[in-house]
Amino acid sequence: MEKIKVAIIGWGNVGRFCKQAVERAPDMQLVGVVRRPQSIGKDIAELEGLSVVTDVGELGAVDVALVSIPSREAPDKVKEMILKGIPTVDSFDVHDQILATKKALNQLAVQHRTVSIFGAGWDPGTDSAVRTILKVIAPVGKTTTTFGGTTGGRSMGHTAAVKAIAGVKDAVSLTLPNGAGRHKRQVYIELMPDADFEKITAQIRQDPYFIHDATDVVAVENVRRFDTMNHGGRLERLTQDIQQMYTIEGVNPMMTANVMVASARAAYRAQLAGQFGAFTFIERPLIDFLPGSFEERLEGY
Amino acid sequence: MEKIKVAIIGWGNVGRFCKQAVERAPDMQLVGVVRRPQSIGKDIAELEGLSVVTDVGELGAVDVALVSIPSREAPDKVKEMILKGIPTVDSFDVHDQILATKKALNQLAVQHRTVSIFGAGWDPGTDSAVRTILKVIAPVGKTTTTFGGTTGGRSMGHTAAVKAIAGVKDAVSLTLPNGAGRHKRQVYIELMPDADFEKITAQIRQDPYFIHDATDVVAVENVRRFDTMNHGGRLERLTQDIQQMYTIEGVNPMMTANVMVASARAAYRAQLAGQFGAFTFIERPLIDFLPGSFEERLEGY
Repeated sequence: MEKIKVAIIGWGNVGRFCKQAVERAPDMQLVGVVRRPQSIGKDIAELEGLSVVTDVGELGAVDVALVSIPSREAPDKVKEMILKGIPTVDSFDVHDQILATKKALNQLAVQHRTVSIFGAGWDPGTDSAVRTILKVIAPVGKTTTTFGGTTGGRSMGHTAAVKAIAGVKDAVSLTLPNGAGRHKRQVYIELMPDADFEKITAQIRQDPYFIHDATDVVAVENVRRFDTMNHGGRLERLTQDIQQMYTIEGVNPMMTANVMVASARAAYRAQLAGQFGAFTFIERPLIDFLPGSFEERLEGY
Repeated sequence: MEKIKVAIIGWGNVGRFCKQAVERAPDMQLVGVVRRPQSIGKDIAELEGLSVVTDVGELGAVDVALVSIPSREAPDKVKEMILKGIPTVDSFDVHDQILATKKALNQLAVQHRTVSIFGAGWDPGTDSAVRTILKVIAPVGKTTTTFGGTTGGRSMGHTAAVKAIAGVKDAVSLTLPNGAGRHKRQVYIELMPDADFEKITAQIRQDPYFIHDATDVVAVENVRRFDTMNHGGRLERLTQDIQQMYTIEGVNPMMTANVMVASARAAYRAQLAGQFGAFTFIERPLIDFLPGSFEERLEGY
């Protein structure tokens, strides 16, 4: 069987775990990693033996590109790939921009006869799928989503948003459950010399990522000691007649990467079937995300 | 907007809750109930004002038929509907016959240009979807499914299988969790006069529904006091790096009916799109199971 040729664009936490997930997938082959020119040549042991390039065109045939760069930059990179006719997957996580992103990407993907599966991490992504299932079983009710696992978790999207602010040297943004689907954000920052702490704090609190939640910002000498790879979520839909709960907890970039790599499979299958467009995770059949023959995938149904 | 015209075939516990779910669905209209000739004319208050017929043809246009009869009779009834070109939904629950059923129904449905969504209850059905999602997030690992909720639950499929045995007047089959995905079955039966308890017990234990589990059979004067509508399940996939759990508990036929009615919507949409065939729950996009416009369905993603 021909293996799916996968490229990874971006080499952050998620990119690293994408490599691991692609290498473990029985039906995939990693063809290379695309990095920014300024990052090329950096001596990273994990990249040894891999093609590391600045332009996806240098990798030859690519069936699917995993776009593992900061969320806000992802849609532009996806558009660039669509124009080249390369199917993509990303874990774009700005919840209130999902519909606008769908509209922007879908038309382009149809026009260029390619497939993009976007917003395909664990939330949004698989959690969105679980939220849909909860509604199917109990159409009337209210679902709450609470992030942070049992002890609080590190949000990659929020952390990247803070790191992008001028004057911030390094940052870690933790999400803490605050009851009934509410959250607190605990942001640790290392400042550049002469950076204005008050101004940066105000800027963080105004950011769309943070504006809905109580946000504490703390300046520290080294954010690493506050860091954790773990994160999680709890989805609940409790009605008089039907009670449902789903919990997920674990290594955040690993969970994200695993969903992205499974989505690469679904994107590849959609491309083969000529079902072009940009899709969220819930717009593709779940069975398409599993490896193996149809019979194998239906096992355990 | 034109409402989806739904017929209910069979008037057991699931059929009754299908009526409630269809009537609550904003996009559906109940056109009638199909019953066996010997059941027609029975004075059931809930059926007042509804068309109750013995042949679906008497109901005029039907967009989707909900086949809510015992699981083992369902595939034949579905075939009958497919031959008439009527899309169907059922909650066929014999796990190890899913693939064979798929093959038998799919070809027929494609040939007759119609759609069948089968095995679409909460297990198999939405639990199968959750099991798929658990695998997407953690490709390596083992999922356990434990039924029975916190206190044991009444299995409709198992109960119907026992009721079908000659000499059994009435029955209730309870499923009790027995640790790590294992189960015990507790079967209460009312016997007909002169029925052979030992022979019936052996027959129950040999039945494919029971053969894998420890099964206690108890003869009682009246099974009703052992009855419960509640049931539930717990799905777990726990690995070193990622831990996931899903629990569902509630009124069993209501949960089944809600999934079937949502599946009727997905079947209708597939039919409109000309995507003919017989499909399990995980072969259709999740977004198709929700009511409302595309924009509304993507809300909360």
